[in-house]
Amino acid sequence: MSTLQTERLNLTALGRAAKAASRTLATLPAARRHAVLAALADELERRADELLAQNALDVDDGRAAGLSEALLDRLLLTPERLAGLAADTRRVIDLPDPVGREYDHRTLPNGMRLYKRRVPIGVLGVIYEARPNVTIDIATLCLKTGNAALLRGGSETLRSNLALVDVIQAALERTGLPRTAIQYIGDPDRALVTELLRLDAYVDMIIPRGGAGLHQLCKEKSTIPVITGGIGICHLYVDESADLERAVDVVENAKVQRPSVCNALDTLLVHRSVAATFLPAVAARLARHGVELRAEPAALEILQAGTHGASVTPAGLYDFDQEWLSLVLGVKVVDTLDEAIAHIQEHSTGHSDGILTTNQAHAARFIDAVDSAAVYVNASTRFTDGGQFGLGAEVAVSTQKLHARGPMGLEELTTYKWIGIGDGHVRA
Amino acid sequence: MSTLQTERLNLTALGRAAKAASRTLATLPAARRHAVLAALADELERRADELLAQNALDVDDGRAAGLSEALLDRLLLTPERLAGLAADTRRVIDLPDPVGREYDHRTLPNGMRLYKRRVPIGVLGVIYEARPNVTIDIATLCLKTGNAALLRGGSETLRSNLALVDVIQAALERTGLPRTAIQYIGDPDRALVTELLRLDAYVDMIIPRGGAGLHQLCKEKSTIPVITGGIGICHLYVDESADLERAVDVVENAKVQRPSVCNALDTLLVHRSVAATFLPAVAARLARHGVELRAEPAALEILQAGTHGASVTPAGLYDFDQEWLSLVLGVKVVDTLDEAIAHIQEHSTGHSDGILTTNQAHAARFIDAVDSAAVYVNASTRFTDGGQFGLGAEVAVSTQKLHARGPMGLEELTTYKWIGIGDGHVRA
Repeated sequence: MSTLQTERLNLTALGRAAKAASRTLATLPAARRHAVLAALADELERRADELLAQNALDVDDGRAAGLSEALLDRLLLTPERLAGLAADTRRVIDLPDPVGREYDHRTLPNGMRLYKRRVPIGVLGVIYEARPNVTIDIATLCLKTGNAALLRGGSETLRSNLALVDVIQAALERTGLPRTAIQYIGDPDRALVTELLRLDAYVDMIIPRGGAGLHQLCKEKSTIPVITGGIGICHLYVDESADLERAVDVVENAKVQRPSVCNALDTLLVHRSVAATFLPAVAARLARHGVELRAEPAALEILQAGTHGASVTPAGLYDFDQEWLSLVLGVKVVDTLDEAIAHIQEHSTGHSDGILTTNQAHAARFIDAVDSAAVYVNASTRFTDGGQFGLGAEVAVSTQKLHARGPMGLEELTTYKWIGIGDGHVRA
Repeated sequence: MSTLQTERLNLTALGRAAKAASRTLATLPAARRHAVLAALADELERRADELLAQNALDVDDGRAAGLSEALLDRLLLTPERLAGLAADTRRVIDLPDPVGREYDHRTLPNGMRLYKRRVPIGVLGVIYEARPNVTIDIATLCLKTGNAALLRGGSETLRSNLALVDVIQAALERTGLPRTAIQYIGDPDRALVTELLRLDAYVDMIIPRGGAGLHQLCKEKSTIPVITGGIGICHLYVDESADLERAVDVVENAKVQRPSVCNALDTLLVHRSVAATFLPAVAARLARHGVELRAEPAALEILQAGTHGASVTPAGLYDFDQEWLSLVLGVKVVDTLDEAIAHIQEHSTGHSDGILTTNQAHAARFIDAVDSAAVYVNASTRFTDGGQFGLGAEVAVSTQKLHARGPMGLEELTTYKWIGIGDGHVRA
C-alpha cells in the first residue's frame, strides 16, 4: 500500500473493491460473519508483539513531535489494551444480529406480499483521529453487520493502523473472505479525505469521529450522506421544584465524571427561586473537582456573594456556545421554565439535555419542547452512550435528524429493502 | 414577498422563522394539526376562482414561452384538479398519525426508564419542478406530521404557487398557527437554491423532487442531509424457469403502464435458454404500444430474425445506463442468473428491480444479491409507490441507504428522540 509513495493512492480502485466486497459480505450467513470476528480476536492475540512494536514506533514519533501526554495515552496500545480489543471483538459475536430480520409484512389488496428486510448499508467511510482502537472497533462492528469499510485514521497512528488492518485482512483471508472488505487509506495526502467524501459511486455512508472541524469538513464537502454528531453542548435545567440535594449529585456527575466527552455537561441553568440556595451548594461540590464556573450576571452575583471555593468568572459572549470538554461550566439563572427551554433551543447542539424537577407537568413540557437526541428527566446527561443504553456497541452519536439519533449501535449500521412477492402481478 | 424585487430575499430570516414555527408545530396535538388541514381544504374550495385565475396566467406565459403540451398539462390546474387537491387534503387527516408514538421501552439495570418517541423532523426544504399540486401535497404532509417547510417550485408556476401558499398561510392563520410554518421562496434568483442547501442552521432535511440534475446539485452543494432518489434505472430479469405468458404481461405493464415515471422498466434481461421464445413474444406485445427496443448483439440477432412489429435498433454504449422515461426499452440476453445479477449491480440505480421465475432458489438468490430499495419476484416494478405500498401518501422515493428507502410516507417524515426518566440517576 505504501510502496509507491510517488504515485497517489487510487481511491476509486479501493472504492470499487470495497463495493464488490460488500456484496459478498451482504449475503453471508451470521456464522461466517462471526467466524471472521473469532479469527480476528485470535490474530490480535497471536500477533500482539508485532502490533505493540509498530505502535511503539508511533508513540516514539509522537513523543518526539511533542504530542501531549493525554494524546500519547490515547495513541498507546499495551498488552492489556490489545487483550481488551480481542475480548471486545469476541463479545460482538454474541450481540443480537440485526441483519436479515424481516418485518412490516403486509398483503396488498391485489394479493401481492410485501415486507421489509434489514440489510447492511454497504460501504462505510470512517474518518477518525489518533486512536488505534477505533480501527478494531469499527472493523468489528462493520463485519458483524456485513458492511465493508474504508478507514482513514490520524497520521500519528499510521503504523499502528496499518498493522491492525493487516491483522484484520489476515483474519478475512483465513476465513475465505475478501481482504478488501476492510481497507485503510494509508497515503497521508490530505486531499484523499476530500476525495473519499466524494466517492458516492461506492461509499454509502460517511462516519466522522473527531472534533467539530472534521464534522464541518464532512458536511461541507461530502456528496455521501454523513452522520454528523459527537458535538454536545449539553444542558441541565434545575427547576424550582427540583430535589436540590439530588440535583447537586446529578450536576456533579454530568460535569466531572468524564469531562472530556461529548455528553458531559456544558451549561447549568437554574431557576431564580432556587438559585440562591442551589448555586453555592453546587459550586462547593464542583470546587472539589476544580471546576471553573463562567457565570452570567445574575448567577455571578449569587456566586460571588457565597463562599464555596469554586473559581467564578463572568461568562464571555460565546461561553454558552462552548462544548467545554474540560472542567469548565457555564452557569445561568433563568426566570421560568420557558426561558430555560428557549436558552436550550438556541444554544444546544441537540445531543443531550435534561431537566431536574419534581413537577410532572414541567417534565412533560420540557420533553416536548427540547428537541435533542436524548432528553432526560432527573438524570445525568452522561447516559447518552450505546453501552449505557443497552445497544451493546456504539459506532457514533448522531446529532442530525435522519436515519438515527443519539447512540448508533449495530441496528443503525443496517438499512432495509422492500421485498415484493407476486404471482405475475401488474399494476392496474 | 415580491414587493422588493431589488433586494435579495433574506433566506436566513425565512429559515429562522421556519425553525421557530416548527417548534410550535412539534408540540401540537393531532387535533390542531388536523384542524389546519380541514381549513386548508375549505380555503382551496372557497378561493378556487382566484387560484385558477393565477394558474391561467402561468399557463398563458408557459404557452407563450413555448412549453410543450405535456409540460403545460402538468402545470395546469382545473376545477376538478383543485377539488381533487381539497379531497386529498381531507384524506390525509384520516391517515394514521405517526407523531408522538412511544416505543422501544426499556429499564436500564440502574432503574432508569428509557424509550423513544417519534417526533417531527423539524424544517424541510423541498425543491421541485413545475407542478403546483406538489405545493399542496408537501404542505399537507408536512403539517400532518408537525414539520415546517421552505418550498421552492419551478419558475413556470410561480403565480400558482404564490397563490396556493397564500391559501395555506390563510388556513394556518385561521387556525391560530404561524403563517411561517409553510413558506415559499418566491424570488426567482437561482442562487437562492444553493443558499437554501446551505441553511443547515435551520433546515433539517432537503427533499429534491425533479430530474437527475436537481438531485446531483443537491448532493454536490447541500450541507443538509438530502433524500436523493426518484431516478430509477429499473430491471426485470426473465429467468429460464419463468412463466413466459405471465412474464409478457408483467414486462408490458412495467414498461407501458406509465412510461414517464421512475419505476417504469428500463432494461429487460432474458436468460439465453428462453430468449428465442420470449423475445419475439414480448416484442410483439410491446409493439402494440409503440415501444422501441435497444438490443445488445445476442438479443438483436433474435429480434431481427423474428416478426413482431417492434422497432429494434442496436443498443448504444450507454443505453443500459439510461432512465428512459419514455417508450424505449433496453434488451439483453444473459447466460446465467449471476450474469443478470451482475448486470443489475452494475447498472441499477437501486430503485426497483425484479426477477420473473418459478424457481424458488433463484428468487431467493436474486432477493439476497440485488440491493435495491424494492426487489420484486414475479411482479411489475410499477408497484414502488407510497399509495401502492399502503403508506397512504408519498413524499419522495429514496434510492439512498440512510433514513428511508423506496417510497417515503408520513412515518418517514418523522424521526425519534430518546427520553430518559430517572430519579436522580448518575452514571457510575
